[in-house]
Amino acid sequence: MSPILLNGIGTVNDHSEYIEPEVPFKNPQIHVKNPHLDTMEEDILYHFNLGTKTHNLPEMFGDIKFVCVGGSANRMKSFAQFIHQELALPGNMDDVTDICEGTDRYSMYKVGPVLSISHGMGIPSISIMLHELIKLLHHARCIDFILFRIGTSGGVGLAPGTVVVTDKAVDCFFRAQFEQVVLGKVISRSTELDVGVSKELLQCSSELDDVPTIIGNTMCTSDFYEGQGRLDGALCSFSTEDKLEYLRKAYNTGVRNIEMESTVFAAMCRACGIKAAVVCVTLLNRFDGDQIATPHDVLVEYQQRPQVLVAHFIKKRLGLVV
Amino acid sequence: MSPILLNGIGTVNDHSEYIEPEVPFKNPQIHVKNPHLDTMEEDILYHFNLGTKTHNLPEMFGDIKFVCVGGSANRMKSFAQFIHQELALPGNMDDVTDICEGTDRYSMYKVGPVLSISHGMGIPSISIMLHELIKLLHHARCIDFILFRIGTSGGVGLAPGTVVVTDKAVDCFFRAQFEQVVLGKVISRSTELDVGVSKELLQCSSELDDVPTIIGNTMCTSDFYEGQGRLDGALCSFSTEDKLEYLRKAYNTGVRNIEMESTVFAAMCRACGIKAAVVCVTLLNRFDGDQIATPHDVLVEYQQRPQVLVAHFIKKRLGLVV
Repeated sequence: MSPILLNGIGTVNDHSEYIEPEVPFKNPQIHVKNPHLDTMEEDILYHFNLGTKTHNLPEMFGDIKFVCVGGSANRMKSFAQFIHQELALPGNMDDVTDICEGTDRYSMYKVGPVLSISHGMGIPSISIMLHELIKLLHHARCIDFILFRIGTSGGVGLAPGTVVVTDKAVDCFFRAQFEQVVLGKVISRSTELDVGVSKELLQCSSELDDVPTIIGNTMCTSDFYEGQGRLDGALCSFSTEDKLEYLRKAYNTGVRNIEMESTVFAAMCRACGIKAAVVCVTLLNRFDGDQIATPHDVLVEYQQRPQVLVAHFIKKRLGLVV
Repeated sequence: MSPILLNGIGTVNDHSEYIEPEVPFKNPQIHVKNPHLDTMEEDILYHFNLGTKTHNLPEMFGDIKFVCVGGSANRMKSFAQFIHQELALPGNMDDVTDICEGTDRYSMYKVGPVLSISHGMGIPSISIMLHELIKLLHHARCIDFILFRIGTSGGVGLAPGTVVVTDKAVDCFFRAQFEQVVLGKVISRSTELDVGVSKELLQCSSELDDVPTIIGNTMCTSDFYEGQGRLDGALCSFSTEDKLEYLRKAYNTGVRNIEMESTVFAAMCRACGIKAAVVCVTLLNRFDGDQIATPHDVLVEYQQRPQVLVAHFIKKRLGLVV
């Protein structure tokens, strides 16, 4: 799919048009698309508290083959411990330490060839992390890795607990694109993900018990309440029927879940030639309500499903299971 | 200032026009503008791990007069401890406990009449927090309080360490408005802040040593790298001259600092009739560079400046200093 060309919005500023060049998924190397980086003596990855002069990034990260990112710091620590156990790595899984210890912006854990990082909530938060992660993997000279977002979401017409592997990441107008404003100009980027990885994940799910999984479109919004048609925010100017109509429209375009990071994740991975997938569990069916009232232990089990699925994928790729 | 009326962008969807009604700052009560809330038996503030049935919110929060929010959880804990000390409250300041302990989405501390909460990075992250905070203050029947965002930012033509009290919060096109997509329609909200509180903060700064403070416009972006014209992201398609031209344009419209939360903060507070101010220190002068290379101890001192300023404001309001 070609990136869509958009006219700038508004007329006050000089919003001109821009075409983002395509990067194929074929090359195992990252395409960091910034000529200025080569001229920098040092690169400080501020929000990770890491840098090219203070840390030996190739030594620390050069063997990474799988990068998993998710919103919550606690969850990404649990995931690192789970992977430690699943890969039967030496040492105690409770000893995994936060590589970004000096900052509380993000948490990062490395277990064998797997990197587990938190990204907070929303497009801006994950986008800062992705800029620094992509530069980190570039500086570390990592090749041939896969990037997964494992998260939670609201389901659209699905039983709670269903895992959705994202086909297309779409915006709140159901368009498979991500708009980024750069120096007052609107740039539109394709949010196409890697079809092969998605299919492989679906195959993996069929080999597991209790990880009901589908492939569907994922809608990414910039707001959890009004932006997702919730009736329970501090502000709400629409009716229950308006909400349901919007959700029905979304469903009819193929949307099966709603979260807050997938479009920029897909767009940045594609722009840099990184194979990537989005794997989110649904915590509720939005046709049935807005509040997340499911008991805590059930939610915890749901949140483990994307982890179990991606862990199985990793183990298969590493030849640890057939 | 009246909210600006915007046409919807694009033509695929039904983006119709919408006028957001004005709320004056006069009324000490919060205007939670959601008729559905009254019909709910229980309100679960999911990302705070609090609820109207599980917690006595009026008892826990009814006496709040100042709410301070900032990005980093560690910083907001330090602020709570600092306020504990400054207000000479009984007990040990190290004993402040996180009210949102059961979740790692946000951290929340209450010290006397002051609530200190973290909001993560970016508009979506602070907006989830604000929806739940405004509902919390509504359920707790709080009146006559002031909401401050204390944060960090990039400076535009200012010496690093300068504190900027926001006059107008503007978007990346320098417009004093916040666009929210609601059910596929673009709504535009005014980002006007309370002039009286800003002036009072400036007066407070003149009574303090080492808190250089100005009033200026604050630009709020959805991206830290390309969105703020940085040359050091994973993606960068513009030249140093393009960047400087954009920053000069921003400066000429009155922008003195750049951060990632002020427009939605101002818009939601205004929509709900809450007196609010944005107080951010600049960590660098963006005309001189993009990377934050300042030594850690200097950054820590800079980050304390908005805290010192707001603490002084609170102490004056409480009659603890003249």
